Amino acid sequence: MDRKQIPDIVVGRLPQYLRSLQRMYREGRQVTSSQELGERLGISAAQIRKDLSQFGEFGKQGTGYHIENLIQQLRQILHVDQEWEVAVVGAGDIGSAIVRYKGFTDRGFRVTMIFDSDPAKIGTQIGTFIIQDTNNLVEEIQKAGICIAMITVPAANAQSVTEQLIKAGVKAILNYAPISLNVPRGIFIQYIDPSLHLQRMTYYLD
Amino acid sequence: MDRKQIPDIVVGRLPQYLRSLQRMYREGRQVTSSQELGERLGISAAQIRKDLSQFGEFGKQGTGYHIENLIQQLRQILHVDQEWEVAVVGAGDIGSAIVRYKGFTDRGFRVTMIFDSDPAKIGTQIGTFIIQDTNNLVEEIQKAGICIAMITVPAANAQSVTEQLIKAGVKAILNYAPISLNVPRGIFIQYIDPSLHLQRMTYYLD
Repeated sequence: MDRKQIPDIVVGRLPQYLRSLQRMYREGRQVTSSQELGERLGISAAQIRKDLSQFGEFGKQGTGYHIENLIQQLRQILHVDQEWEVAVVGAGDIGSAIVRYKGFTDRGFRVTMIFDSDPAKIGTQIGTFIIQDTNNLVEEIQKAGICIAMITVPAANAQSVTEQLIKAGVKAILNYAPISLNVPRGIFIQYIDPSLHLQRMTYYLD
Repeated sequence: MDRKQIPDIVVGRLPQYLRSLQRMYREGRQVTSSQELGERLGISAAQIRKDLSQFGEFGKQGTGYHIENLIQQLRQILHVDQEWEVAVVGAGDIGSAIVRYKGFTDRGFRVTMIFDSDPAKIGTQIGTFIIQDTNNLVEEIQKAGICIAMITVPAANAQSVTEQLIKAGVKAILNYAPISLNVPRGIFIQYIDPSLHLQRMTYYLD
């Protein structure tokens, strides 16, 4: 398998497959089919079979997919058979909610540091974390060798924070600030902006 | 223009265009080009021109787009030239952060109610909101005529909340619970799950 050859849209569906499979596994299930996965996800069974076949032979005609095995394979493909440390920049409401969020645990991620530039927040605690000074971001992230970060600062500060993160060696950024960021080639960026999702739906509403 | 004919992937880009244009407008700008928009968004200028041309003639060859006018048109196309009331179900960390979030204001949305099923939370306040009992959700949402909701409850409760929301007349749901939901035709659903975004990036990291 050549990773370069696989369309990003296919890659984007794999985490959805993994999430559904992990849920089935927690429900005590052992075997599933592309039909069942498709129904859960609103994706056609043919599409799921085609996507998975790009990475190898996971299912057998007539017997379906062995859930635990497919989870294992997908975790390897997505590189979440390890736990990635994540830095959060911005200790406002969203940053604080992320730091307390329990949902990363079996997904491959663990928040290990949070930064803010507000002197009133620096040194105070969120849960078990002490909020660190954004001025020390480059040094601290480099020292820890962290390569994933989430940005939850106001839009006006997001680009400069991004540049510091890249300087610190961060390769993947999940940006919650409602602004598009410029990043050089080789840096991955994804966005979370609830208004974009809502507007995509109101288009269809009268 | 026939709304049915326009691919959803095109519709999904319009909110990004609108967000960038609103930002330029706040920066005091009056005119932009598909080139500039494209650079800000990491989308080709040709794609932007093609997307917008599906909805009418917005720019002139050589003079570019009039920002304020294009904002106006996009807000009409996306139906955010009005303000939609939004209900939030789940008053945990994420629900609370959403209720306090200032970013919806010029995007077409206003959170007007929040529900939780925890007796310890019902009747208490988040900001100016009193947390209401999820048991009254159908009645309250119906009475207010709300058709957009966000779900921030644990995964195990998300499907049953979804069914109540649909019963209440909700047509568009933004789901923060890390689970795929089954909804009938005519109900729109979008997902926010940070782990899915992170896994989509770790695929490319060594």
